[in-house]
Amino acid sequence: MNSRGRLFGALSVAAMTVMVSAPALGGGVPPAPNGIAFPEGYKDWRVIAVSHRTDNNSLRIILGNDAAIEAGRAGQTNPWPDGAVLGKLVFKDTSHEDWPAATVPGRFVHAEFMVKNAKQYAGTGGWGYARWLGQEQTPYGKDPGFAQECYGCHTPVKANDYVFTRPIVLP
Amino acid sequence: MNSRGRLFGALSVAAMTVMVSAPALGGGVPPAPNGIAFPEGYKDWRVIAVSHRTDNNSLRIILGNDAAIEAGRAGQTNPWPDGAVLGKLVFKDTSHEDWPAATVPGRFVHAEFMVKNAKQYAGTGGWGYARWLGQEQTPYGKDPGFAQECYGCHTPVKANDYVFTRPIVLP
Repeated sequence: MNSRGRLFGALSVAAMTVMVSAPALGGGVPPAPNGIAFPEGYKDWRVIAVSHRTDNNSLRIILGNDAAIEAGRAGQTNPWPDGAVLGKLVFKDTSHEDWPAATVPGRFVHAEFMVKNAKQYAGTGGWGYARWLGQEQTPYGKDPGFAQECYGCHTPVKANDYVFTRPIVLP
Repeated sequence: MNSRGRLFGALSVAAMTVMVSAPALGGGVPPAPNGIAFPEGYKDWRVIAVSHRTDNNSLRIILGNDAAIEAGRAGQTNPWPDGAVLGKLVFKDTSHEDWPAATVPGRFVHAEFMVKNAKQYAGTGGWGYARWLGQEQTPYGKDPGFAQECYGCHTPVKANDYVFTRPIVLP
């Protein structure tokens, strides 16, 4: 083996080590009970909308992956295209300490996601659902059946492809 | 002139036409009266926070350019570093048609920005201010003095480097 071969061998071992330990190093958030993987990198997604629910005192920031952002800007949201993923970041309300009339994000409650794949998730309206709780990012739900709960809540907006969010319209 | 030459000539004229008319076609949003240029591409910035002002019934999405996002995640926001730009998208409140207890973005009011440069904007706390109104993106203010109005409103949060926004904290 020449030096290039030795280097390559060493790099291969290093690469294997990284691959084996990646789940523990890279966050390693467990998947949802229905198998949906935690969408690493969602914090870098762009914004689609926001909402403030006064029935449970929470502020929500709705983000989208690239496919969702493109669809939202093109108005192609009924149905949303396969591959679109919507993420909702939910925070408990708190008041701004220097501007009490402003409600701002307090405690982080959870991040929840809708993954569009009309065929794969035909049993829940074409969307796969997943949620991770709090700063611990604990997967929500005991078994895959949890998604029926999500689906039930989204059924009132079936006519809008089961999505509550209306993308913001900017100039 | 051969056909290739004619085609090139025609394309050159077309290109010049596009260049000349670009300000009208390609955004071409006029700068603020203090010279701050419209931050093209702000729609692709990442989210820093959100707020709901009940004193003027508006929802706000706060975005940051890359420098602001990095600073926010690193907790380096007092002071924010030169180069950080914060953008605030303001919408009038409306109720979600299928979930009335949810307040969601209605009419787009304006996009406003804070540009950090401690030396350049020393007269207004180290931040340059700019705002563009509505879907028309009309620059706000009659002359550069408009920024004193912004500065005045931000003075109560001088201890937080004149910034109301507290970046969201995600796991």
